[in-house]
Amino acid sequence: IPETAGSAARHRMDLKAKPLGSLGALEDLAVQLCAVQKTLAPRIERKAMVIFAADHGVAEEGVSAYPPEVTARMVDTFARGRAAINVLSRLHGLDLTVVDMGVRGAVTPQGQIVNKRIGPGTRNSALQEAMTPREALESLRRGREAFQEVMERGGPVDLAGFGEMGIGNTTAASAIIALATGKTASEVAGRGTGLDDQGLRRKIEVLEKMIALHGAPPGERLDGLAILRSVGGFEIGGIAGALLAAASARAMVVLDGLISTAAGVIAVMIEPAVRDYMVVSHASVERGHRAACEFLGVRPLLDLSLRLGEGSGAALAMPVIESAAAIMREMASLEEAGLVPPPGLIPPTSI
Amino acid sequence: IPETAGSAARHRMDLKAKPLGSLGALEDLAVQLCAVQKTLAPRIERKAMVIFAADHGVAEEGVSAYPPEVTARMVDTFARGRAAINVLSRLHGLDLTVVDMGVRGAVTPQGQIVNKRIGPGTRNSALQEAMTPREALESLRRGREAFQEVMERGGPVDLAGFGEMGIGNTTAASAIIALATGKTASEVAGRGTGLDDQGLRRKIEVLEKMIALHGAPPGERLDGLAILRSVGGFEIGGIAGALLAAASARAMVVLDGLISTAAGVIAVMIEPAVRDYMVVSHASVERGHRAACEFLGVRPLLDLSLRLGEGSGAALAMPVIESAAAIMREMASLEEAGLVPPPGLIPPTSI
Repeated sequence: IPETAGSAARHRMDLKAKPLGSLGALEDLAVQLCAVQKTLAPRIERKAMVIFAADHGVAEEGVSAYPPEVTARMVDTFARGRAAINVLSRLHGLDLTVVDMGVRGAVTPQGQIVNKRIGPGTRNSALQEAMTPREALESLRRGREAFQEVMERGGPVDLAGFGEMGIGNTTAASAIIALATGKTASEVAGRGTGLDDQGLRRKIEVLEKMIALHGAPPGERLDGLAILRSVGGFEIGGIAGALLAAASARAMVVLDGLISTAAGVIAVMIEPAVRDYMVVSHASVERGHRAACEFLGVRPLLDLSLRLGEGSGAALAMPVIESAAAIMREMASLEEAGLVPPPGLIPPTSI
Repeated sequence: IPETAGSAARHRMDLKAKPLGSLGALEDLAVQLCAVQKTLAPRIERKAMVIFAADHGVAEEGVSAYPPEVTARMVDTFARGRAAINVLSRLHGLDLTVVDMGVRGAVTPQGQIVNKRIGPGTRNSALQEAMTPREALESLRRGREAFQEVMERGGPVDLAGFGEMGIGNTTAASAIIALATGKTASEVAGRGTGLDDQGLRRKIEVLEKMIALHGAPPGERLDGLAILRSVGGFEIGGIAGALLAAASARAMVVLDGLISTAAGVIAVMIEPAVRDYMVVSHASVERGHRAACEFLGVRPLLDLSLRLGEGSGAALAMPVIESAAAIMREMASLEEAGLVPPPGLIPPTSI
């Protein structure tokens, strides 16, 4: 993204009829969106939400409060339009797609479920690599493809949210964040869907095993693809691929919570330019989320104590991002409101 | 609000197809809304935003970075549909009304501006009481009337946001908060529209004068009306009156930043039951806002570093509140999703 689009947008925002900086995070969002869309009049017409679902071999280790069967049950609930993300997508006008990247149980093909299955879940990453190198690449490719199909079906996407479903995936995401940032197991482990103290201790032990098994040798660093292959999930690879596709199409991307932000970490390790297109929708209750946001250098927009996933936080952030676009487009300048710009902010003739 | 409506709603929310508590603040909002509307299927059909504008005698003391003329300019900008709050109201479907409670300059009667003028601004509260006892009561009465007229014009309001415009009103609001909570001038003073360090020191001195002049004698406490009269503004009284009217009509009310939350403090001092109807939309950058929220016992929903006023933060919070209502109404239960409720959460037959 050229620096000039951003600085012209910042200048225009500074000249709006308001005290300098008084719209806080909305101003930064508007400027980012102008840079993404290369315009001073950003528009958000089509909003898409894509949920990637898959199962995780590491769930065998007893790291979740729920059994793996729940992944398929929730995918069915998405298909029937009754989960939280369906409700939020209807309310906020998001075009919702659910992508089966490798759910373990049988998924009934119905509604908006897209089949991009790689296999019936990953292998147990506490014992071996979660995916083969080929599967890891395939997860990225199919995620990219799924997003491209969303665009082929309904036209260009201005704002794309990414969510997930997969029992065991807070463990996979926490391991990704630990391997990418160098944090320890206890610095990234959270309670997921609701582990008690004993369950959390167990999850930390499993994460320690995963980090010991897959961590880089001293003095070396893992690349994004190696981290994805060793501990990641098919849905996490899918989101990373979709993020790359969305950024290529100049869509603003909205990450949800722990898992989709971990996918953001993988995507940025593969292609650092993707970061300019990203918004992190909310601060998750999960511990590892903060480390992932710091790694990305992105401040979460909302803090509603969410820990559901499904893209629910991303859906809630979208009206805020739309607000930023509308402010940039429609709000009067100081001059139009009959007010005097503060000294030093006289518009250059070039704008 | 009966306790039973809230606890039945909490139980129903606990049985939704999600980990217990995983929708965080959205769950609390949904439960509050059920209690306000006395239903387990809350609806938000009509959303209203009412902006109260007035000038402040205390502006003479040099407590703002902008001159009082700006109040009238911004009211004109509201009327022409070009301010931030117009943009946000259009985007989020809010019925916007602007109420002139006593702007100093000439306000051209146009568009949605309602005339409830008490006078050309308050008196200088650093030297004397801002209002006569009669004016204070009148500000409450006219605010109440303005909200009732919004309902008469367009039907019942489910969600009501209150914003303001008035150069000098962060000083008035900070003084209200200091007098209500016992905080000192420097604990409640902020930079308003953009004071520099010297301006902030000046504002603290003026606030110290106001607190010394109007504070209660040792061992006594001021009531809400006395605080409003001594340091408040016509627009702050207007918001307080509108809050009382909205709660009477069982509308959920959304406070904006420092000034409307100070009006919330006045309203709750007059009628403590109003608190059950309140949401504080966002944490303002202004220092005194935190003290006001603590006084009300309400946690702000968003934190976007806003300090514009106009109701902008309240407008941004509305889609989150609508989301909470939709989740409560439309999301599947655990049972409907084919999932097992956690032990201890078997629904009682009475629900």
